[in-house]
Amino acid sequence: MCSPKVMDYVRQQLATGQGISRRSFLSAAAVTTAAAGLTGTSLFAQGATPVASPDASVVSGIVDLTYTMTPDIPVWPGNEPFQAEPVKTFANDGFYAQKVSFWEHTGTHLDAPAHFHDGADTAELLPVENFVAPVAVIDISSRAAEDPDAALMVDDIMAWEAQYGELPSGVFVAMYSGWGARFEDAEAFVNLDADGVQHYPGMHPDAAAFLVEQRSIVGIGVDTLSQDPGNSTDFGTHITILGAAKYGVEGLANLDKVAPAGATVFIGAPKHQNASGGPARIIATNPVR
Amino acid sequence: MCSPKVMDYVRQQLATGQGISRRSFLSAAAVTTAAAGLTGTSLFAQGATPVASPDASVVSGIVDLTYTMTPDIPVWPGNEPFQAEPVKTFANDGFYAQKVSFWEHTGTHLDAPAHFHDGADTAELLPVENFVAPVAVIDISSRAAEDPDAALMVDDIMAWEAQYGELPSGVFVAMYSGWGARFEDAEAFVNLDADGVQHYPGMHPDAAAFLVEQRSIVGIGVDTLSQDPGNSTDFGTHITILGAAKYGVEGLANLDKVAPAGATVFIGAPKHQNASGGPARIIATNPVR
Repeated sequence: MCSPKVMDYVRQQLATGQGISRRSFLSAAAVTTAAAGLTGTSLFAQGATPVASPDASVVSGIVDLTYTMTPDIPVWPGNEPFQAEPVKTFANDGFYAQKVSFWEHTGTHLDAPAHFHDGADTAELLPVENFVAPVAVIDISSRAAEDPDAALMVDDIMAWEAQYGELPSGVFVAMYSGWGARFEDAEAFVNLDADGVQHYPGMHPDAAAFLVEQRSIVGIGVDTLSQDPGNSTDFGTHITILGAAKYGVEGLANLDKVAPAGATVFIGAPKHQNASGGPARIIATNPVR
Repeated sequence: MCSPKVMDYVRQQLATGQGISRRSFLSAAAVTTAAAGLTGTSLFAQGATPVASPDASVVSGIVDLTYTMTPDIPVWPGNEPFQAEPVKTFANDGFYAQKVSFWEHTGTHLDAPAHFHDGADTAELLPVENFVAPVAVIDISSRAAEDPDAALMVDDIMAWEAQYGELPSGVFVAMYSGWGARFEDAEAFVNLDADGVQHYPGMHPDAAAFLVEQRSIVGIGVDTLSQDPGNSTDFGTHITILGAAKYGVEGLANLDKVAPAGATVFIGAPKHQNASGGPARIIATNPVR
């Protein structure tokens, strides 16, 4: 996190151009940062507004936002679990390999536009530039602790912006609800009621509409099974996000270890033919303290 | 790439500490770079030596090093191809999803230590810090064009270092042989001779030993089917790299679009249970010009 003094210094340098152009200064800055071997340099895919990172004192480094896929992890009701079987073994072959199979929307995974919109882009066709992005973590965990049906609302986005500034262009907006505390207990994570309705937090369709209409996002992410709240009947957030040619990521881990603002996310999206989505390795780098 | 003048300016600032500490300067630099919305900032996983990037004038931005996985891509002789079948369709379900299955070492993929060493780490256990790294691209394409059995030798590493400086700590070393020109023709890519022996470039075991003993690497990558040259009988490079708890990536695409030095690579490694390896989304960000 930069002190106001440092930021003032930088602004002054940029304003007065003391012996260095803005462009050159930024290039030099990048090289110097790299040379110092720092981790967590913020690396934005597109134009971005500078943001403060008040939590940079408690989060740092590289964070894995991905759960390990196993046959026991929570899946959407009715979906087959992940399966694996050895096809090469040390005993028989001198080395080891498995055959794996899974439904695309298993574990920490990406939803492509084609998951909900016939003829829209499948995952392997999405622009790679959208997979390196600034990430905004919006925390609704206190409300979700009281109400499993809690949704990320436009007001939550407004509150984030009041604290950190307008969402940067090309941002990945991640909902942190704290629901990951239930991940090891698949039944509690899916949280079906007596009528078979799921209950867990998600993004409200109004918030999704705000993000695609009023801001510039590459996609959204949630730490639950679905972009929409579990009890959604219209899948309004899926329809809006994917309909705008953005992507959704479900089942994110460790969002509490990512700075609310100033971090960068890498989306290791699936790249196989005709992908409606699929398991994705997601890694965040926190801002340099 | 920074002009000498700019680098002199930065060194002067760092040396004289004009109103700003080194640490603060670097923090400010990171935030400022982010604020400018630049792509391709070099982001090193570990301490790194500054390197020149003479090709930064011809490469830029974010590069996808991943092939799309289909049933038709080249695979190791005898391996089953990738398979996919729809399990949800717009006609029946109102949305679309597939079940996919594949052998782990298919397409652009990672080899974990456990692929060759019983009891060593499987892919999902590898440290996430090793998946964001500086990348050195070592070009043996002119030799490979003449000789399909060409191997990346210690001399090639020496030649790279003579030009760009010692390999940075925590580097990912990628062999570019130009073999990707054959990727669309699986038979030409695998290149079996009349005796069923494969012929394509790889890394010589001596170079692998040099990298794990004399340098600090996170892993290696090749643009062919195997870390070892296709005609290897002892798999010396696999054994050395994986035996040192490093990873190997096979089937890299587009290495000709990555700066030989100064770029950063993101390894979207597979994260499923007991993984000997698996398909990985690999993305590079070129250094800022």
